[in-house]
Formats: sequence, structure tokens, C-alpha cells
Amino acid sequence: MQKPLAGQPFDDIRALLRDLPEPDREAGAAVRARDARLTKPPGSLGQLEMIAEWLALWQGRHPPRIERPVVAVFAGNHGVVKQGVAAYPPEVTAQMVANFQAGGAAINQICRTFGLGLKVFELALEKPTADITQDAALSETDCAATMAYGMEAIAEGADLLCIGEMGIGNTTIAAAMCHALYGGKAEDWVGPGTGVDAEGLKRKADAVSRAIAFHKACLADPLEVLRRVGGREQAAMTGAILAARHNRVPVLLDGYVATAAAAILHAANPAAIDHCLAAHCSAEPAHRALLRRIDKQPLLDLGMRLGEASGAALAAGLVKAAAELHSGMATFESAGVSDKEA
Amino acid sequence: MQKPLAGQPFDDIRALLRDLPEPDREAGAAVRARDARLTKPPGSLGQLEMIAEWLALWQGRHPPRIERPVVAVFAGNHGVVKQGVAAYPPEVTAQMVANFQAGGAAINQICRTFGLGLKVFELALEKPTADITQDAALSETDCAATMAYGMEAIAEGADLLCIGEMGIGNTTIAAAMCHALYGGKAEDWVGPGTGVDAEGLKRKADAVSRAIAFHKACLADPLEVLRRVGGREQAAMTGAILAARHNRVPVLLDGYVATAAAAILHAANPAAIDHCLAAHCSAEPAHRALLRRIDKQPLLDLGMRLGEASGAALAAGLVKAAAELHSGMATFESAGVSDKEA
Repeated sequence: MQKPLAGQPFDDIRALLRDLPEPDREAGAAVRARDARLTKPPGSLGQLEMIAEWLALWQGRHPPRIERPVVAVFAGNHGVVKQGVAAYPPEVTAQMVANFQAGGAAINQICRTFGLGLKVFELALEKPTADITQDAALSETDCAATMAYGMEAIAEGADLLCIGEMGIGNTTIAAAMCHALYGGKAEDWVGPGTGVDAEGLKRKADAVSRAIAFHKACLADPLEVLRRVGGREQAAMTGAILAARHNRVPVLLDGYVATAAAAILHAANPAAIDHCLAAHCSAEPAHRALLRRIDKQPLLDLGMRLGEASGAALAAGLVKAAAELHSGMATFESAGVSDKEA
Repeated sequence: MQKPLAGQPFDDIRALLRDLPEPDREAGAAVRARDARLTKPPGSLGQLEMIAEWLALWQGRHPPRIERPVVAVFAGNHGVVKQGVAAYPPEVTAQMVANFQAGGAAINQICRTFGLGLKVFELALEKPTADITQDAALSETDCAATMAYGMEAIAEGADLLCIGEMGIGNTTIAAAMCHALYGGKAEDWVGPGTGVDAEGLKRKADAVSRAIAFHKACLADPLEVLRRVGGREQAAMTGAILAARHNRVPVLLDGYVATAAAAILHAANPAAIDHCLAAHCSAEPAHRALLRRIDKQPLLDLGMRLGEASGAALAAGLVKAAAELHSGMATFESAGVSDKEA
């Protein structure tokens, strides 16, 4: 069992988590006022109306616009794969990063379809994090530095950020983070990931159990959960989400692993992910329970379980449509359409 | 109570309903074979993989492509509005058609977002159908001619067809069609539509009940259901769906009213809508039950209830992504990614 460290490297992060920008309620009210005049029955665009308001609240402008949508995919490797928890060998992480760079991965096709920019963050793939069953995944310094690096996701400007990941072994890491944050049994939080068999699933649950037992005394602080049983892409995603909040960039969360990163921030301060929407519910069984814990309703539910921000990028298509609907539609007055009751 | 007519004008339609083209199983198998080699875990794109296969099966080609997506919106007026069933006056139908033509409606913005072509069919708006509580909505000749006109939706070519409608009063018409096809009570099939209050909802249920009682002896034949308690946009949509089937064009069905039109074909021959996917589940309460009756799972569930093919066009974005994913992704071999078990 491990003792908590002092915590200096996290000081800046803690300050960002404390002093959160509020939503722009004036922009939100402007959406509702314009929406009521658009040529449609009130409420008839369902969640697309909510999305337009959410964009305005967190972009801090009316009308909301999507001109620089960015998809950020964070890739990391994990010492815990030694425990036999993954269906693919760890070198696949780097091979898939090369595939992202060559344009051959799923996320490239979705980005092309919807006109989304793609940024891939390769996080020291040659240096996997420590095996969480025996050690903290990252030092405090390394964890805080990786969070800071994740903040680069929006460094060149963005008005919508899709957050996703690639990392062989990282559904085990996500399960460990959720088990640490929410308790229950390890079995509640593990799933087949990219496709382990029943034996592999047992090894995953066992590895998660042992990791939590090992770090038990140090898991009260969500940032300690992140550095002890998380990983580099998880740390970078929390940094990206936090930077987005402080720079008025609404965020779409991808699947189970990305949502587990958001859950770290939510545990530290529930308001810290108010600018995030859950893009989809993945087929990884624990994702639905995790979404309930952070109080998010998924936009899509298509049985996807790929990662790579693929679900978030798909939902970005809907978000673009919602923005176009809000700003492009005619009003009853401008179109000469009657809005009188019959 | 009315007696059935002889039925000559429907002869061509009945022939089209009998001699349905089969799916191209070779193209479907080619999708599955290529899908297994794409750089992703098997099954990890969930329903997007099913969509790629569906496109190939019904387009009859591999890889499936979306180069000419067409959204067809059919607009009609209904004598039943005299029964006080609608929240807006009937002149709104023509006003909204003008709005479609001017580019100010919801459907225009979604078409622009996803690069979809839009065709609007104005169906004798100045001449509403007869009030179904007292007469057949259409003569056989008029109904068959309107079905034939609907077939024009794909006349200039299409490789994906989104089907939707606009017509004040037409959720009452859809409810009457469903009540005629599936029984139950009128209350099971009516809903708030564009937003009637509790009194309006009672008038809707009452009008549907009286319509079904009036036509009761003549509702065994689904085409008689269509002409007696349907309307022009419903007839045109059935024609469009049937023409799409015979011309290898996969179809996305919009909400409750469009699905009720598809249900007519399904009742005549359950295989007749195998080339259709349900784009979404609308907030109109009976839509979910109707989708179960025709055995379709909706792709989206966003609480929309606008019509105009808005849900179908939104789902067309997903379908475009599915086609791009299937044809654009690298294979394990071409990308040098390991697909060996760990």
C-alpha cells in the first residue's frame, strides 16, 4: 500500500478546477428567444434545440457557430497490458497512430465526412506507464505535465472539441479509474474492450481489483486516482477538457475511456464538465452506468466501441446541423408563415 | 358505411408490390468480407457496419457510395382539419412550401450541412382531400395518380432517398391509417402532433374513431386504407418508396407520418420495405409502437417531431459517414497494423 504524496505539481490544475468560468446565460437566453421565432412548432427539433443553447452558453456568443471543430485523439501505452488484459499487442497503439497520420483510420473518414480538423497526440508510446497493479502509473510531475500537454488540443483555436483516445489496455485503465471513483466491484466496470474473451475478462477484473487494493489508501483525491490507476491519454484528456472550459470551447466526450477521464474532473468539481456533452453510449457495458454517475444523456446510441473519438466526431455532425438550424432558419415574420393557433 | 370499389387503377401498384427486387447478397457479402479486414476490432463500428451492408445490399454494388443523396418532402392538405384536429391553420402548409423553396426551413439547413439534394412536391394544396370522417380522402384514380407522381422523387437519379412530409392535419391522418391497419383504440395512435392541447387531442381521437367506423367495411386492403383515410402526401410517399425499391435506392424513413405511409406497403407485402431504415424515433408517442409493428429499429432518438424529412436528413449524415468509413478505411495489411491476438 502506498502513501499519498505532497501534491505541489497539481497546484495549477487545482486552481483551474476551482475557478471555473460560468456559462454565458445571456447568449443562452438569446438562443431561446430566437428559437421561439423560428419556422417550426416550439420544441419540435428536440435535442437539437438543447444543443444550440449549449453551444451558445459555452462559446459565450449568439448565434453559436462551428467554424473550427477540432477532434483530438490522445494515444498512450500501459504497463498493465503485462497482466494479459488486452486483445491486441501493445505495438498496435503506435501502428494505429501511424494509421491516423496516413489517413486510413476510422476517425479520418468521419473527420472528412463532416469537415472536422484532426489532431493526434502521441504520448511517449515507447515508455508505457507503470503497471498499476504494482505501482502508480505516473509520477505527479509526469501526470501534471501530461495534463498540461493535453491543453495544447485547443492551442491553435477551436470552437468545438471532440475528445477521444487510442491505447491498447486502456479500457482496463478506465475500469480501474471508475472502480476507484465509484466503488462497487471490479466486475461492474470491466468489459470486453476491443474484444477479450471470457478468460481475458477475468484477468481484467482481477488486475483492476489488485490495482485498487494496492492504491487503496490514496484514492480519495481524484487527481491521485488519475495518476495512480490512470494513464497518459487519460491525463491529457482531463487537461484538454479543462483548457476547453477556460477558453469557451464546448466539448463532446467520446466513449468509456474518454468519459472516465471526464469523471476525474467531475469528482473533483461536478461543475467542471458542465461544458461537455456525452456524444454517444458505447457498447462497452459500463459506459451507461458511468454516464449516469456524471449525469449525462448520450446523443447517439449506435453500439459503437472503437474509441479514436469516433463517436464524438459522429455526434459533431449533429452539432453542426444544430448550429446551422439555429442560425440559418427563417423566422415566422421573415418567411410570412402563420404562427397563430388554428 | 362504404362498399369497396373494383380496384383497376391500383393494378400497376399491385404488380410492383408483388414482384419486388431482391437484395444483392453478393454486394452484402463483399461488405462483410472487406469490413473484417479494416483497421478496427470486428464489430466496433456497431450499427455503422450494418448501414454499410444495407447500402450495398440495396444499391446492388460494392463498395456502396453516396453521390446523389436526395431528400423528398411531400406536402398535402387534408379535409379532416375541419374537425379541429390541428394546432396551425391549413394555409401553413403552402406557407411552409414557400419557406422550403426560399431556403428558410429546417430541412434546408440540414440538407446544406450534409450536402443533400432537396426536392419538394406540392400536391394540389389548394384542393384538400375529403374529410375522412365523412368520405374517402381520395378517389382510386386520384390516389393511384398521386402514387405515380411520388415515384418522380428519384426520376433524376438518387443513391439514397430520405422521405418526409409537410401537411397540417397529417398526424391525424397517420393515426387513422395506423388504427385501420393495426386496430387498438384511436387513442393509441393519436398524439399532440405540432402541439394540440388536451381538447384538441380529444377531437383528434374522436375524428379518427369516426373515420374508421365510417370506412370499416373497406379497410382490409391496405391500398384502400391509404385512399380512404390517408392523403396525398401519404400516397406520394408510398409511390416514392416503391419506386426506390425497383430502382436500387435505399430509403431513410422520417417520422410518424412517413412511417405510416411505409406501413401501408408493409401491410400489403412485409418485404416491400426491406430497403428502408427508420431514421429516427420521433417524440410523437405512437411512432415507437408503429416502428415495432413494422419491425424497424430507429437510428436516432433525439426527441424530434418536426417532419419535413428532418430526422431522415439528419440520419443521412450518419449514413454518409458509414459509406465513407467502409470505403475509405485502410486494411490491416495496407496499414501495417497487427490483427494478431496479443
